[in-house]
Amino acid sequence: MPRVLGVDPGLTRCGIGVVEGVPGRPLAMVAVGVVRTRTSDEIPLRLLALEAELETWVERHRPDVVAIERVFADANVASVMGTAQASAVAMLAATRRGIPVRLHTPTEVKAAVTGSGRADKAQVTTMVTRLLSLDAAPRPADAADALALAICQVWRGGTQSRLAEAVAAQAGRRTASSRPPRAVAR
Amino acid sequence: MPRVLGVDPGLTRCGIGVVEGVPGRPLAMVAVGVVRTRTSDEIPLRLLALEAELETWVERHRPDVVAIERVFADANVASVMGTAQASAVAMLAATRRGIPVRLHTPTEVKAAVTGSGRADKAQVTTMVTRLLSLDAAPRPADAADALALAICQVWRGGTQSRLAEAVAAQAGRRTASSRPPRAVAR
Repeated sequence: MPRVLGVDPGLTRCGIGVVEGVPGRPLAMVAVGVVRTRTSDEIPLRLLALEAELETWVERHRPDVVAIERVFADANVASVMGTAQASAVAMLAATRRGIPVRLHTPTEVKAAVTGSGRADKAQVTTMVTRLLSLDAAPRPADAADALALAICQVWRGGTQSRLAEAVAAQAGRRTASSRPPRAVAR
Repeated sequence: MPRVLGVDPGLTRCGIGVVEGVPGRPLAMVAVGVVRTRTSDEIPLRLLALEAELETWVERHRPDVVAIERVFADANVASVMGTAQASAVAMLAATRRGIPVRLHTPTEVKAAVTGSGRADKAQVTTMVTRLLSLDAAPRPADAADALALAICQVWRGGTQSRLAEAVAAQAGRRTASSRPPRAVAR
């Protein structure tokens, strides 16, 4: 069953959710969590800590695709820098291993799981809980958002998969040539 | 002689300059260059290509400090995302190896090399060329800016060096202890 690791990027809280599924079949949650880094630490250290955690998740769950929220520069100015940097860390953790990365906008994610691109957070959380048949809502919101991203990818993935595969193949070749002793998956 | 690698972060053009020196003595340029990634490539691939180049520079020149331009979210909205992501890649390349990272604002850099925080690009390039006793101005501007950052670090570095050392020491420990047999934290 195809497995997607969703990332809601952030430096203070980064949501991660792993989902298995194909369109038209019940979805299954594999794992969910949040990586936190200390606001009192310097940015380089926080990026390093986040990278170590994301690599652990990728190594452990070996997703077929990593889905990341597409960040916009016109979002909240105070947090957009950390979000952009956290998304870069997530992209590298996947691409380095030849795993395709796919980006989805918040509107695409909301529309995928609730039917409306203008749904609020509570609605997204409710639908994620229902679609994954969970006993309780995932908390915090970043965790639910990461699962929503993964679900969005499962359902929308087919339309863009050829592009993602081409990118992954190219990345695999580049990684293989520039980092000798590392085995590349797929 | 202490060696600084300066990075003017960018995804389309990333300036890199290596300078050796101490305050009050003539400065020496070790190397300068620009890393370019193709705008037609996907962002994850561009980050991976930039990472490979930056790691080559760090490995080859083994700087004592990496100085990176501090990025602000209120800069040009169209380019700020790429700049933030490129700076994250540079921070990781250094911090992963326990090399201290130092950030300087454009105003600090201009003030360091020209005496005025409001100097224009031509003035910065002129002073970089003069201070490093170069036969010709470094081109493109990103290369000159990276050298200016390194010079700024040489001259301002002393005041904040204890913090940088503490951060580097902490990063070295974390990297050493958090790699291979990691446990997942949720």
